Amino acid sequence: MSDVRVVLDSRFTIGEVDRRLFGSFVEHMGRCVYGGIYEPGDPLADETGVRKDVLALTEELGVTAVRYPGGNFVSNYRWEDGVGPREHRPVRRDLAWRSIETNQFGLDEFVDWARRAHVEPMMAINLGTRGVAEALDLLEYANSAPGTALADLRVAHGHRDPHDVRLWCLGNEMDGPWQMGHKTADEYGRLAQETGRAMKRLDPTVELVACGSSNAEMPTFGSWEATVLRHCYDVVDYVSLHAYYEPHDDDVRSFLASGASMDRFIDGVVATADHVRVAQKHSKRINLSFDEWNVWYQGDFPGEDALDWEVAPRLIENAFTVTDAVVVGGLLISLLNHSDRVSMACQAQLVNIIAPIRAESGRPAWRQTVFHPFAGTAANARGTALRAAVEAPTTVTAEHGTVPVVDVAATTTGDGRSAVFLVNRRPDEPISVELELAHLGAIAAAEHTVISDADPQARNTVDEPDRVVPTTREVTRLDAGRLAVTLPPASWNMITVTHGK
Amino acid sequence: MSDVRVVLDSRFTIGEVDRRLFGSFVEHMGRCVYGGIYEPGDPLADETGVRKDVLALTEELGVTAVRYPGGNFVSNYRWEDGVGPREHRPVRRDLAWRSIETNQFGLDEFVDWARRAHVEPMMAINLGTRGVAEALDLLEYANSAPGTALADLRVAHGHRDPHDVRLWCLGNEMDGPWQMGHKTADEYGRLAQETGRAMKRLDPTVELVACGSSNAEMPTFGSWEATVLRHCYDVVDYVSLHAYYEPHDDDVRSFLASGASMDRFIDGVVATADHVRVAQKHSKRINLSFDEWNVWYQGDFPGEDALDWEVAPRLIENAFTVTDAVVVGGLLISLLNHSDRVSMACQAQLVNIIAPIRAESGRPAWRQTVFHPFAGTAANARGTALRAAVEAPTTVTAEHGTVPVVDVAATTTGDGRSAVFLVNRRPDEPISVELELAHLGAIAAAEHTVISDADPQARNTVDEPDRVVPTTREVTRLDAGRLAVTLPPASWNMITVTHGK
Amino acid sequence: MSDVRVVLDSRFTIGEVDRRLFGSFVEHMGRCVYGGIYEPGDPLADETGVRKDVLALTEELGVTAVRYPGGNFVSNYRWEDGVGPREHRPVRRDLAWRSIETNQFGLDEFVDWARRAHVEPMMAINLGTRGVAEALDLLEYANSAPGTALADLRVAHGHRDPHDVRLWCLGNEMDGPWQMGHKTADEYGRLAQETGRAMKRLDPTVELVACGSSNAEMPTFGSWEATVLRHCYDVVDYVSLHAYYEPHDDDVRSFLASGASMDRFIDGVVATADHVRVAQKHSKRINLSFDEWNVWYQGDFPGEDALDWEVAPRLIENAFTVTDAVVVGGLLISLLNHSDRVSMACQAQLVNIIAPIRAESGRPAWRQTVFHPFAGTAANARGTALRAAVEAPTTVTAEHGTVPVVDVAATTTGDGRSAVFLVNRRPDEPISVELELAHLGAIAAAEHTVISDADPQARNTVDEPDRVVPTTREVTRLDAGRLAVTLPPASWNMITVTHGK
Repeated sequence: MSDVRVVLDSRFTIGEVDRRLFGSFVEHMGRCVYGGIYEPGDPLADETGVRKDVLALTEELGVTAVRYPGGNFVSNYRWEDGVGPREHRPVRRDLAWRSIETNQFGLDEFVDWARRAHVEPMMAINLGTRGVAEALDLLEYANSAPGTALADLRVAHGHRDPHDVRLWCLGNEMDGPWQMGHKTADEYGRLAQETGRAMKRLDPTVELVACGSSNAEMPTFGSWEATVLRHCYDVVDYVSLHAYYEPHDDDVRSFLASGASMDRFIDGVVATADHVRVAQKHSKRINLSFDEWNVWYQGDFPGEDALDWEVAPRLIENAFTVTDAVVVGGLLISLLNHSDRVSMACQAQLVNIIAPIRAESGRPAWRQTVFHPFAGTAANARGTALRAAVEAPTTVTAEHGTVPVVDVAATTTGDGRSAVFLVNRRPDEPISVELELAHLGAIAAAEHTVISDADPQARNTVDEPDRVVPTTREVTRLDAGRLAVTLPPASWNMITVTHGK
Repeated sequence: MSDVRVVLDSRFTIGEVDRRLFGSFVEHMGRCVYGGIYEPGDPLADETGVRKDVLALTEELGVTAVRYPGGNFVSNYRWEDGVGPREHRPVRRDLAWRSIETNQFGLDEFVDWARRAHVEPMMAINLGTRGVAEALDLLEYANSAPGTALADLRVAHGHRDPHDVRLWCLGNEMDGPWQMGHKTADEYGRLAQETGRAMKRLDPTVELVACGSSNAEMPTFGSWEATVLRHCYDVVDYVSLHAYYEPHDDDVRSFLASGASMDRFIDGVVATADHVRVAQKHSKRINLSFDEWNVWYQGDFPGEDALDWEVAPRLIENAFTVTDAVVVGGLLISLLNHSDRVSMACQAQLVNIIAPIRAESGRPAWRQTVFHPFAGTAANARGTALRAAVEAPTTVTAEHGTVPVVDVAATTTGDGRSAVFLVNRRPDEPISVELELAHLGAIAAAEHTVISDADPQARNTVDEPDRVVPTTREVTRLDAGRLAVTLPPASWNMITVTHGK
Repeated sequence: MSDVRVVLDSRFTIGEVDRRLFGSFVEHMGRCVYGGIYEPGDPLADETGVRKDVLALTEELGVTAVRYPGGNFVSNYRWEDGVGPREHRPVRRDLAWRSIETNQFGLDEFVDWARRAHVEPMMAINLGTRGVAEALDLLEYANSAPGTALADLRVAHGHRDPHDVRLWCLGNEMDGPWQMGHKTADEYGRLAQETGRAMKRLDPTVELVACGSSNAEMPTFGSWEATVLRHCYDVVDYVSLHAYYEPHDDDVRSFLASGASMDRFIDGVVATADHVRVAQKHSKRINLSFDEWNVWYQGDFPGEDALDWEVAPRLIENAFTVTDAVVVGGLLISLLNHSDRVSMACQAQLVNIIAPIRAESGRPAWRQTVFHPFAGTAANARGTALRAAVEAPTTVTAEHGTVPVVDVAATTTGDGRSAVFLVNRRPDEPISVELELAHLGAIAAAEHTVISDADPQARNTVDEPDRVVPTTREVTRLDAGRLAVTLPPASWNMITVTHGK
């Protein structure tokens, strides 16, 4: 008799898994751009300054879309500083991170990099210190066919073809008093409406993300989304969510159940968006862009005011533990379980800044622990997300109340491949799980991949880059439609199944 | 016994007819500028690119003032793009009409053209994507004496003397959600107040038009005007009205009575302006600028989103019918009958776009049917508008309820010339009219000019440009002070009278 | 038996006298800059165009800080017009004073002048026609270390070291409908909050002044301050007050008691700022910047609309009387008596415009009557302001009700020097005063300086520049701790005391 029983049935679905769910984020912050994806002169960089090792790991990670150039950075950024001949680009003071921005990397370089990394670029515009006119200039530069002034400027800069950027964030965290040009919900809603409408007039193919709350603990959470959407429901396609998770008071049990918090956040934003839909009699649904999420030990960050005008300073370069990786895997499970409404998500950030990939000058880039659950999920969570029927004991957590001891998500494709993702939220006990997959088709083969470790604090470092890697475990085949597996304590687990006739 | 009896008395007046009532409109839209008033290389264009045939017809039309450069166009226009050496002017994407704007024609060329056409220029400023500072720059460029930077720029561009533009529209249709940089009434009222005040500080001779509602069917009509004027009553001189008329469900009877709708619209705006005057204890009256009006078959327009980045595309080049001309004549009657409060009006537009003048490359421009009632009214409606006493049967219309079968306006000059304008609103019956003019002076001579046709759908075309022209009809002189005329079905009529001793 | 008895005790204090209390104001208005502090070609100007005589008098006046460049001027000013090679600076139309601004004097010249005059520069930014981005550019130009674009521009203009400007006014009189870009309290409060926060992110050493009311008679006085501070309490350090005083209906008795009005104004703003502090639970106190104050015969000013585009026109160059000087002395007494909350003050303005210093081309600058009480107070009001215990008869004034016949302030230093400032508010009678100073230390020496004249309308002129100067009067030493003096009618008096062991 297993502790947990999971029943999957291809007729009980949540929604298609949008590939954009496996997005990441490159901000001009710390060493994410400079010394991260781009480090001219480094032995591992090519002649364009792109670090080939970081690029290769980005592809291996399975990232599908990358948000750029911020984050807080964008709210005082002038995009035109970052295009054109490098010797003419101005050096600026970025107020978001009190850093010196050399502008040697900008829009054109990012799009080139994104094409090489096979990721979709997702651009954010500055709605802090700028408005509609500047947004239109940027969009014309990025997306318009040659023949008008700003498109021709792009051509003159060596990019004849439009960049064809589809995804645009209407500012970043405009609800946050820390944001340059922070807005009230009414101010931002009006600005988003007018900017969005003008952008779609210029390029009807763009998809627009309105800023939701910077996190679920903002005093304006909920009312912000409602007011903003009341103003701009018609012109936007998505509303954003940002959330970072960390253990409080060493409460690992709560930390391992962080997905419960993400679930609640998503449910709240869905409810608010649908409330506006109903109240304003719209037929269109606003879906969610969870465009900043991750584990982040925020106590390590000294605050913006403590930063002191360096170029690419070393900021929040956390070395993630095994436990962090398990939590990241759990957050991905939460996203999968909201595939009906969450259309995209960006782990923040890609390199160096609380990132799956780390890079140091002159040394090969390496995979942090959190790289592995992301890569595994991105590779295998394909097709349709299933509504899993889970019978499981519960556990009581200080932060999230009573939650099941396992977190489960599952996907299945049309061509006979399924995947089940499970987190064992118990820090100290294994869990036995029986998977009933008969309704997905007969099981031809199954594999169980695990992230867990006797030392949950184990990390990968530049000197020991593979200290933590996924391992495989035995899968017991109970019959043609049933498997049994055991989840180690505090573990992330992926069961990939191939179905036969 | 006539069907209708009209009594005129020079002691019962409405007000002086402002010559600006016969304004028109040139927007950077479709082929109004390019291929309309300006078409370099055309056999009929002079060396400056101005089409001489269009210019001559503009003068013949009797236009007194021309609004420029928009319309919706202005709300994302940068005036400075259109001045200076042509080879340096940027090509832009106009979002209002999703058209490519070459900027080969701009402010300086327009003012030159207006001087040649003997019309007063009426400029609109961009309050969609721009604000106070840019409005001041434009005003300095246009109107300031040499000696400061922007005035000197105008001089450098070959215009030593200030353009001396008196009439300025504070944006265009800012209440319309289709407008780039659309505003709420409070937002726009505040912006109009601050922009207007600054403009008058720079040039106290300017007259300012605040945006009223885009049409009387806007959900905010009335409340928009009240809120806007509450903010900016002190600094503005006029509030605008825009209206376009067309038949619905082939209901010609209602269409012929369109003037009743215009009357109601004007009365509503007068009431609102006067309400604010009373409530805020102003002595100044705000008068009306009906700066867009015409017949427009809006169903022919595919919508802005269907337009696709052409240079001077062929947009809403309606061929007007005889019935359309009769309605246009009726709308002019409505304007004359509000001479006490309507200070100016602009038929939209001058050339090609639902216009009295049409032009094709390499062919002489021609007069549409609507040209004739406009030209006749502009030429003869001079002096003082009279409050006509009309005894007439009524007719029931679906759109306007019960209205008199004739629409009548009359003017008289100090030097013995009067004119009576009448529309027979019955589509199928003539009307006999007796005019009692004794109190205007003895009748020396009288002429009856008519627009009507056995085929009310008849149109003028490039190949048959004079298919529809005014004709004259007999006037019966009953005695020294009385005339009798017969109005054909669905006709516009003008009785011009010379008075003797 | 004296009419008045004043007891001072170093244990009963108001607060430290901030040296910034003796500030002045240089606006680009009239002949304050051009023909005032700067007049290239004048025999008294040096090779940089700075008038040496005005500079010397500024130092003699004891001015500690100077506000620049406006005033109303700043609200349509582009700071970058005034930097860089002079031959490239644009000539502009200043809308505040309808004057031609040549921009030959700007930020860099002002800071150079301020350093030579040993005064602290206090800069105002344009929040009328500009916003956050332009404020940040100016701040970077002024205060940032070399290495970024705008700081490097300053270096290229010959100023390697940052100007290190600490005091910044967030706009000027934004509550006044005459102000270019006038704001509502909510609009301004939000703009001040966002601008101030961004400025402090760029340079945390700046101190920020929010605009309070333009004067205590504004219809929004009180509610303006409360609303503005509710928005920006956290980011600003001071709130401003402006006030000008003049006799009404020749009522000299009220005019001499103008300090009572200033007292009331200050008390009202303190109450409002503290109300917001309490209501929003702040610990920080907002102090006051009385950054425009003076005697001004406003009836002499024809109004901005009467001005007509001159370069440095002769504006409000009042010749001050003895009575005006006494009132100015009394206003300084009011400021000293609010040393606990008024952190700085600026007499408006420094030269020519209702100013202590007057200059004409080719003639040495001279001291107006009001120069003397300012210079005396600035030189001697040092250390701690004392809470004087005053027993005095009262007098009834039409404007201020019942007030004491004398106005008294006193200061004492840690090293044995005290000063007592007194105004005799009676226009026609002397007052005898007994000063009990025992608790300040034994009196070693005492001097009584007076501004008064048999002709209270006497003035200084270019031809008779020393018609009115301070005189000294006898001090009677009653015992080691007590003095007796007599204050002439309508007089300003300063008793400076040296204390022995």
